[in-house]
Amino acid sequence: MPTPRPAAYHRETMVTTRTEWTIDGARELDAQDPIGYARTKFALPDGTIYLNGNSLGPLPVASSARVRQTIEQEWGLSLSRGWSGLGWMDAPRRLGDRIARLIGALPGEVLVADTTSVALTKVLGAALAAKPGRKVVVSSTDNFPSDLYVAANVARRAGATLRVVDRPDLAAALDDDVAVLCLTQVDFRTGALLDVPAITNAAHAAGALCLWDLCHSAGVAPVGCQTNGVDLAVGCTYKYLNAGPGAPSFLYVRRELQETLENPIPGWLGHAEPFEFDLGWRPAPDIRKFLTSTPPVLALSALDAALDVFDGIDIEDIRAKSKKLGQLFVDVVLGADVPGLELASPASPDERGGQVSLRHPRAAELLAEASTRGVIGDLRPPALCRFGLTPLALSFEDVFRGGRAIVDAARSLG
Amino acid sequence: MPTPRPAAYHRETMVTTRTEWTIDGARELDAQDPIGYARTKFALPDGTIYLNGNSLGPLPVASSARVRQTIEQEWGLSLSRGWSGLGWMDAPRRLGDRIARLIGALPGEVLVADTTSVALTKVLGAALAAKPGRKVVVSSTDNFPSDLYVAANVARRAGATLRVVDRPDLAAALDDDVAVLCLTQVDFRTGALLDVPAITNAAHAAGALCLWDLCHSAGVAPVGCQTNGVDLAVGCTYKYLNAGPGAPSFLYVRRELQETLENPIPGWLGHAEPFEFDLGWRPAPDIRKFLTSTPPVLALSALDAALDVFDGIDIEDIRAKSKKLGQLFVDVVLGADVPGLELASPASPDERGGQVSLRHPRAAELLAEASTRGVIGDLRPPALCRFGLTPLALSFEDVFRGGRAIVDAARSLG
Repeated sequence: MPTPRPAAYHRETMVTTRTEWTIDGARELDAQDPIGYARTKFALPDGTIYLNGNSLGPLPVASSARVRQTIEQEWGLSLSRGWSGLGWMDAPRRLGDRIARLIGALPGEVLVADTTSVALTKVLGAALAAKPGRKVVVSSTDNFPSDLYVAANVARRAGATLRVVDRPDLAAALDDDVAVLCLTQVDFRTGALLDVPAITNAAHAAGALCLWDLCHSAGVAPVGCQTNGVDLAVGCTYKYLNAGPGAPSFLYVRRELQETLENPIPGWLGHAEPFEFDLGWRPAPDIRKFLTSTPPVLALSALDAALDVFDGIDIEDIRAKSKKLGQLFVDVVLGADVPGLELASPASPDERGGQVSLRHPRAAELLAEASTRGVIGDLRPPALCRFGLTPLALSFEDVFRGGRAIVDAARSLG
Repeated sequence: MPTPRPAAYHRETMVTTRTEWTIDGARELDAQDPIGYARTKFALPDGTIYLNGNSLGPLPVASSARVRQTIEQEWGLSLSRGWSGLGWMDAPRRLGDRIARLIGALPGEVLVADTTSVALTKVLGAALAAKPGRKVVVSSTDNFPSDLYVAANVARRAGATLRVVDRPDLAAALDDDVAVLCLTQVDFRTGALLDVPAITNAAHAAGALCLWDLCHSAGVAPVGCQTNGVDLAVGCTYKYLNAGPGAPSFLYVRRELQETLENPIPGWLGHAEPFEFDLGWRPAPDIRKFLTSTPPVLALSALDAALDVFDGIDIEDIRAKSKKLGQLFVDVVLGADVPGLELASPASPDERGGQVSLRHPRAAELLAEASTRGVIGDLRPPALCRFGLTPLALSFEDVFRGGRAIVDAARSLG
């Protein structure tokens, strides 16, 4: 049986290939995988094929010992001297710089702090205030609901309105009342990958700023913040960056905007001289102005260990593997022609992020059956199953076996 | 030499007693200490007397293993199933209830989330919006600067103003334009303990809400949120609650206010049904409405272990020990009559929180000398030394030895 060639994945608008994959074919892809070595840097339970990295990234092997060291050696032994002596206060910027590389931003453009919705409240509020003559924020109906809650709230408090339209109508919605276009790069339901350069350009052509939520793309797909002229972004670190449940978020503010944009939730860590204890607010002259309060040291330690896994790896190589993994998964699952099981993601790997979604009328049962076969996915009721394929933690063999198990699970439902 | 009797600490307005303390006297207090057993629940470096619990609480013995379990067993093995299966999403309220007991609040009145300045932005913003006819926030010049930055910002964005006065002028500042009085229970410089019932009553008499920052009191001094009619509060968990560097903050909203107050930084975890993914915002009907985003699971695990140390201990017993520790420290340090070394805190234990501050013209050198003697305190330039005495982690003997070392250090400066 012929082994499929990786070149097949370079077709621009691939639909299901129905290639007859074998485990040997998958293993051959593993043998050729330049970043396959990273899989050993994750601690996954025996017998589990974890396809839910879009909900929570798996545990890097080094994370537990790193956090333990931070707790026992740093907190336990240095105690309060850690605030200044161990670089705790600088960690939001230091780790921000590490993430910057993965999203195509410059050093000094990214900070790690707060949660995604708080970070979004900050940068969206800042963006709206920077466009005083414009009173509309535009977003899409398929954006993550929390982003819409935040955007509606920030807009209302600024005397502006949120205009939510279906994605095909975005271009028409960009009139000259629009201050900010606010979207998520990868659709949390379907895994659809939005076109960052084209959409950012469209926002700029309309005189608006463009703000991207990178929760479902950071660590799995390139963003090109610099190249694509992205103005602002936020994202989480507990999905494809693997920093642990509820790990802190990051925010990106393009360097050219840092002088004019103001942090709408200021606090002492964003002060130019936090330890002067001035009575009056004087923002830091750089990205630090977007900090609010004391860094979450233990959580940042887990993030630091998680980012080590990315060292020496280019995001383009991760993206190349991600597309191949997704197509292998689609081929295996849909190639089996199980009645009722359909692709809910774009057919082309170029139009998907790291996630493949399937539709099935008995989705909850399907996932339960898959789980008894050791495969973990994610349910979005009533009919959607999401599978987030973490490129650094999964081999092609894993994904082949996972796809086969889902086929078996679907067939078992009769 | 007579051993001082604990009864001596019940005097209402005690000044320096100049009692000639001996190590045996301190040990006798330890022998009588009903909560002295808790000291073994902290892991402190050998040879260190840690008097900086007001900056960062010391490490509880159980914290490291608890966090490791959360990382390896929960995150590592349960993976994304932890979101629902392990109670991660409920942790902000569950841990809030544990803190509620320590600040005299009811179950369902406290949440753990965000940082103190973000939490303050939420509850102060909510309070201002609930008093639409009043356009002034009052605070004091000696409040923690970050609280003043937050208050000035929240007031400005609400079309209100922040009125900052010296503490003796607070009563006069409470006119009928005042929406909220916002103060910190324990002064971060001097350790002065403010009179929560009297000040809260004064705010209420003026028709204002009263909001307390409990960063320097939670876990060391009672607040009596219910008894004293406190409307709103925020606080951190990394000082006297010992949850680790940059641990999350908590917020308190009195039950009667929960229906009317709105969270000014809404996000999906505060939605009535977060997993319905509605496009529109519909707040939870209880304290959860003040949540914004995904809980910081690893940090909350450290907090959970830290709160275990408080199990079975009444905050009044902690307060009783705290006052005795403070007076012992003052007696030992000031009883030595070292030139230049002065008390910068109120003289009466009843008027101090868990912290004693000293003034010395060469404060930085004094602390460096103390450090070579194994005693860790905290500098507030130019002349202030702060010593935060964590009641559960310190014996009377520790504090006796620490005070003696500070005297030696001061004498060594000549």
